[in-house]
Amino acid sequence: MKKDNCFMKVAIEEAKKRKGLTHPNPTVGAVIVKDGKIIGKGFHEKAGKPHAEREAIKDALSKGYDIENSTMYITLEPCCHYGKTPPCTDAIIENKIKRVVVATLDPNPLVAGKGVEILRKKGIEVKVGVLEKQAKNLNEDFFVYIKEKRPFIHLKWAQSIDGKIATFTGSSKWITGKKAREYAHKLRNEATAVLVGTNTALKDNPYLTVRHIKSEKQPIRVLIDKDLKLPLDFNIFNKDAKTVVLTSENADKEKIKKLQEKENIKIKILPLNNGYFTIKDILNSLYEEEIMHLLVEGGQNIITQFLKEGLYDKISVFIAPKIIGEDGISAVGKLKIEDIKDSINLKRSKIISLDEDTLLQFYKVK
Amino acid sequence: MKKDNCFMKVAIEEAKKRKGLTHPNPTVGAVIVKDGKIIGKGFHEKAGKPHAEREAIKDALSKGYDIENSTMYITLEPCCHYGKTPPCTDAIIENKIKRVVVATLDPNPLVAGKGVEILRKKGIEVKVGVLEKQAKNLNEDFFVYIKEKRPFIHLKWAQSIDGKIATFTGSSKWITGKKAREYAHKLRNEATAVLVGTNTALKDNPYLTVRHIKSEKQPIRVLIDKDLKLPLDFNIFNKDAKTVVLTSENADKEKIKKLQEKENIKIKILPLNNGYFTIKDILNSLYEEEIMHLLVEGGQNIITQFLKEGLYDKISVFIAPKIIGEDGISAVGKLKIEDIKDSINLKRSKIISLDEDTLLQFYKVK
Repeated sequence: MKKDNCFMKVAIEEAKKRKGLTHPNPTVGAVIVKDGKIIGKGFHEKAGKPHAEREAIKDALSKGYDIENSTMYITLEPCCHYGKTPPCTDAIIENKIKRVVVATLDPNPLVAGKGVEILRKKGIEVKVGVLEKQAKNLNEDFFVYIKEKRPFIHLKWAQSIDGKIATFTGSSKWITGKKAREYAHKLRNEATAVLVGTNTALKDNPYLTVRHIKSEKQPIRVLIDKDLKLPLDFNIFNKDAKTVVLTSENADKEKIKKLQEKENIKIKILPLNNGYFTIKDILNSLYEEEIMHLLVEGGQNIITQFLKEGLYDKISVFIAPKIIGEDGISAVGKLKIEDIKDSINLKRSKIISLDEDTLLQFYKVK
Repeated sequence: MKKDNCFMKVAIEEAKKRKGLTHPNPTVGAVIVKDGKIIGKGFHEKAGKPHAEREAIKDALSKGYDIENSTMYITLEPCCHYGKTPPCTDAIIENKIKRVVVATLDPNPLVAGKGVEILRKKGIEVKVGVLEKQAKNLNEDFFVYIKEKRPFIHLKWAQSIDGKIATFTGSSKWITGKKAREYAHKLRNEATAVLVGTNTALKDNPYLTVRHIKSEKQPIRVLIDKDLKLPLDFNIFNKDAKTVVLTSENADKEKIKKLQEKENIKIKILPLNNGYFTIKDILNSLYEEEIMHLLVEGGQNIITQFLKEGLYDKISVFIAPKIIGEDGISAVGKLKIEDIKDSINLKRSKIISLDEDTLLQFYKVK
């Protein structure tokens, strides 16, 4: 039905208002409709706060509407368990909502369909699958996080046309223009955490915070530094955001102690495997920290390791209108691919023009 | 005036019908308007055939219209000299056209404005500069050809996201998909000639003809082969199109003789400079052949040489949704650029989505 699509679109717009701000919870929106009119809207603000369904009910009631016999549109199946807040199915039943339209089921196969089932048992008419693709896309990170029990992995880099992130001397500021750099901050804003390796941190001394756009939260900064080479006064350790440092037994104990004295820093010791961390250990460690969406900003070694192990979900490549030449530093390291058919094949999604730069986004081919 | 823009747009559409088919002449369209109505249209079909102005007049007359006191819209200043056909200014004057609207003047500074001047002296009202940018863009190749006395240089390659044209073993078929390859043939169709170097010709044995789209002409094939290494039975020497071979005194005389026996092959001997041809000698030689628009299809050596010498006007890069890795073969060779500010900086123009491939087009920053 066209009307269902239309109201679900409004619910998705509600959800989008909190994109990136609800982790480790999904982004959810809800709309209540009665006699063809929207009488209440709501979204899930952030983890610990009420769910979208309850916000929409509150909104309708506060405006003096009677919600009995209304229809509720929700971008995700309502929960039916006690988490930080009571189950939303209870609220729907108690308020005598007559019909519920759900965009997509809960991604957790152990839970999926249970919320819907409870409602149906209570005689509520439930329709599932309206604008499902858009709703899944909206929570692409949450779906991976729940199903794979690891962060959604988003690789990001800025390169010249010919795939270089710097000249052979390391000169890289700036490859892309202002608008592209702002967009990169938007990507940070949508992430739970931003990860860099030791070399990039040493070379660029990045803040890794969201600065070029407005934001009400900062992503967690993740530093991979097995030998804890990074000087203590580097920007990544400042108070602007929380920082998780993944290091090993090789790290200087005194330095660890000094870092641990800082409130915003968490040190995690990972095992070494032939002198390196495995991507799996890194991901498990970040999953423990409830990092749902991980933006990997490089450098070459880290990006290449994620690519080699097939551990990535989305890739954002900013392409500047520049040519650096073969002797520049490559975005991606050696992959030993012999036949073109064995290249890493991706699925291109968006193309975004950012002044003279171009952002190409890709997904993993599954 | 809005009306002038509107009729000039029709003239440009007329011109576009012959894009790439009029070399070494420009692509030109003309429209005759009387009492607000189009009474005649025409385009320049190909070199040696009547100009657009005469075609439009013929069209109007053949339909029985009286063209006295009409307005003519032309995408390029009318000629005022005897070439293969008599001057168009004569035709305009003889037919008592009252007003002439010209998109852009003749690019040749020695001729520019003279056609307009002759018309004005005869009391004809002339307006210049309507949709000038579009008209110049339509004949971007012709303008360079006339002004610089060399072919318009269009570099083209297909690469992975990370700037590779093949794996380290040379495997490259196919990087891009069907739609991108068809578009590449459209680029060939718009060119007077398509150039490749010895290595690419040896490795890929290309036909270099337009096949994936309909075409009424084939571009000239240009092979750079200083030692004439290419076997005589290679596709580039077949009868499907004319081929110009640029070779040197090093070439085997017997082989040259055999090639010269073929009707479609022209051998040109160029001097060697430290063992190589200079790009300038190549361009001069192709200018002699009246090659107005040269599509350079690679490989790496040739592309890099053109880039290094700053001899390029337009660059088309097809980007496939693939990653090959640093050990693959680069589209562009070493450029010894130290500071990112000294990269080859381009101006991005079009972004074209071709199924999952992306075409980015760039112009030289002047």
